[in-house]
Amino acid sequence: MPIQIDSTRLQQELQTLATITSIEQPAEGTAVTRIVFSPDDLRARAWLKALATAEGFLIREDAVGNTFIRWPGTDPTLPAVATGSHTDAIPHAGMYDGTVGVLGGLEALRALKRSGLQPRRSIELVMFTSEEPTRFGIGCIGSRLLSGTLDPTRADTLREANEPADTAQTLAAIREAACFQGTLASTVLPPNHYHAWIELHIEQGPLLEREQIPIGIVTSIAAPASYRFTITGLGGHAGALLMPDRRDALCAAAELILSIERHTLATGAIDTVATVGTCDVHPGAVNSVPSRVTLQLDIRDTDPTRRESVMQAVRRDIEDLRQRRKITITEELINADAPAQSSPHIIETLEQVCTEESIPYKKMVSRAYHDSLFMARIAPIAMLFIPCRNGVSHRPDEYAAPADIARGTHVLAAALAKLASE
Amino acid sequence: MPIQIDSTRLQQELQTLATITSIEQPAEGTAVTRIVFSPDDLRARAWLKALATAEGFLIREDAVGNTFIRWPGTDPTLPAVATGSHTDAIPHAGMYDGTVGVLGGLEALRALKRSGLQPRRSIELVMFTSEEPTRFGIGCIGSRLLSGTLDPTRADTLREANEPADTAQTLAAIREAACFQGTLASTVLPPNHYHAWIELHIEQGPLLEREQIPIGIVTSIAAPASYRFTITGLGGHAGALLMPDRRDALCAAAELILSIERHTLATGAIDTVATVGTCDVHPGAVNSVPSRVTLQLDIRDTDPTRRESVMQAVRRDIEDLRQRRKITITEELINADAPAQSSPHIIETLEQVCTEESIPYKKMVSRAYHDSLFMARIAPIAMLFIPCRNGVSHRPDEYAAPADIARGTHVLAAALAKLASE
Repeated sequence: MPIQIDSTRLQQELQTLATITSIEQPAEGTAVTRIVFSPDDLRARAWLKALATAEGFLIREDAVGNTFIRWPGTDPTLPAVATGSHTDAIPHAGMYDGTVGVLGGLEALRALKRSGLQPRRSIELVMFTSEEPTRFGIGCIGSRLLSGTLDPTRADTLREANEPADTAQTLAAIREAACFQGTLASTVLPPNHYHAWIELHIEQGPLLEREQIPIGIVTSIAAPASYRFTITGLGGHAGALLMPDRRDALCAAAELILSIERHTLATGAIDTVATVGTCDVHPGAVNSVPSRVTLQLDIRDTDPTRRESVMQAVRRDIEDLRQRRKITITEELINADAPAQSSPHIIETLEQVCTEESIPYKKMVSRAYHDSLFMARIAPIAMLFIPCRNGVSHRPDEYAAPADIARGTHVLAAALAKLASE
Repeated sequence: MPIQIDSTRLQQELQTLATITSIEQPAEGTAVTRIVFSPDDLRARAWLKALATAEGFLIREDAVGNTFIRWPGTDPTLPAVATGSHTDAIPHAGMYDGTVGVLGGLEALRALKRSGLQPRRSIELVMFTSEEPTRFGIGCIGSRLLSGTLDPTRADTLREANEPADTAQTLAAIREAACFQGTLASTVLPPNHYHAWIELHIEQGPLLEREQIPIGIVTSIAAPASYRFTITGLGGHAGALLMPDRRDALCAAAELILSIERHTLATGAIDTVATVGTCDVHPGAVNSVPSRVTLQLDIRDTDPTRRESVMQAVRRDIEDLRQRRKITITEELINADAPAQSSPHIIETLEQVCTEESIPYKKMVSRAYHDSLFMARIAPIAMLFIPCRNGVSHRPDEYAAPADIARGTHVLAAALAKLASE
């Protein structure tokens, strides 16, 4: 029997998952906020596991909450073929980022089962914990741990990034409260655990839509880095602290924000992007001169050397700022990751599926990073992109057309079937 | 009997009040956070009323929580002489701002009583509600209402400034929950309610300390204004939204912050000060391009025309920013107040006391604004300043020496006695 994707059901499931959110719906779309280990995240996990159980798939959860949904193959001792993504969402996000890879992956497994396939290798769907960095300031915690990229002891000491220092809880405390217990060292997967890994995802960029191509085959993932800057100046009363005596931390932060933007644009390369996404002001009162500001920077490039050259230029400006404004600026590296290359064999398999099914495709770079960046360290990987409207993501108006989601799911299923037969 | 200030008791009371706070104590001093109508503010009010009751003073509270502690004179039908200040505190503030005027005022009344004085006019101590703008985005709510400066209906609709729009409560709801009931229109004081008003306060500036003068007699209060700017750009994924397509609200906000600083410095006048004290970023995630930023600006000058010329220059930059960055910026005026002049008669009375007691004094401008700015609209006023260390205020290391506090309290008491005998 041919593989048939149940697009209606998949759409219903995406809609249902979108309702598991901690915020009201805005006029412009479906806003989703689902922070890792929040009550909403835990509800979403329970709902997903119930769907998998209903299909008779096996479920394993590790100590950090990564969830493995397995359809055993006829030779279950062989390394499995796997797919997956995440279901957590940043504040006021859309409903497709990550979820298409998880629910599309689930539908791919179901569609293969309905087609009568008896896979030789097991096929596994993975839902990763905390792909988004919102809660702990660092993204892809689950896949970093699986792949041995993040030290398990350090991981447990990560603290909530958006809480005051005196009340921020550790990952250890929060995962335990969410009933994910045991040592994080146990989450590391052995080498050759997976035969192949494919992640289905919306592009989060405008290229596929612009060129009207329904499938992107990702050949490499850009190298991301993130930093935290703490600017400390001199606080005081907004009326009484005279301008010549000021060492205003927010004015210094404003210069730093613009320096980052200027040097990023100056590379002239479309692949260099940098974002200051948060700006926390202390004490944060309208009539008080800011004494301390914390900024978080996300900077990415397909070329890590070029990324570092931007940082070097920013650091020269920081040196000038320090002297001119008599403030201190500390720079803290949160993470700096190397780019990942997709497996030529999996790329070829995906191209073969597209050719067989007469689906146009394009090979491309992923500028967003994904759990696949880390899976690449322990398995041959590739990613499948589908178009999203106006390239928009991380916003309530994020949108991918049902036909595009179904087509991506179909390509995913067909590729998993081929790889599982090897 | 001469007036004798009980400095030991006054210091103990200042210390006790400082412990009624919602935050931990930092290493650098005594940090106080006492937001209006928080549990700590309500505890502070109860404690103050108990002190007043113990002295046999009469207590009245109005519908917004302004608290009037009255020592009746021998002719209680005459307009009273009054003093006072506030006990609320911004986040991470010091322990002297406002409290010196309230507890010093209380000690002045007690010292006069101990001296055997039978005042002709009643002497009243006022503790104002919400001098600080932290909770509702506008300062001096109590004195604005008393003086008919703030429309009572509008006041009740003021919303919490630092809460999300969907959960921010109104002043009406919050004051009712704090058991301050009745219409706000009832808070307005009739003309000639007070014969004279004096507020004792730390300078919150460096001049008295620098010149080693223990008493400042305030002849005018600078004109403050505050604005809220909302910058709306285009959000998106920090990896996928390419730099040329960005309309980053935080980068635009950074330019606005620096524009304000530049034009404020450009007046060349020491009396022009401007502060952007808050910067709220939406959605506020490290990997999401800021789509909306809200800034609050506090700008003050002794010359309202010069203050407005700075705003005009900033608005020209905003026009440029709008076009160049394809963002929108809305400007909302929160308040813009006129400067106040002290009463020549009260200034003269204060000078007379200083001369009689051989205390050096200096006439000066108040760059910080105070409830006295609004009391000036319904009563003859003046303010008394005492030195504070390094001119620091609104910070945990704010400090005024016990001898300076006692001296200021002494001058206050002697002046109240003179004015109450008129």
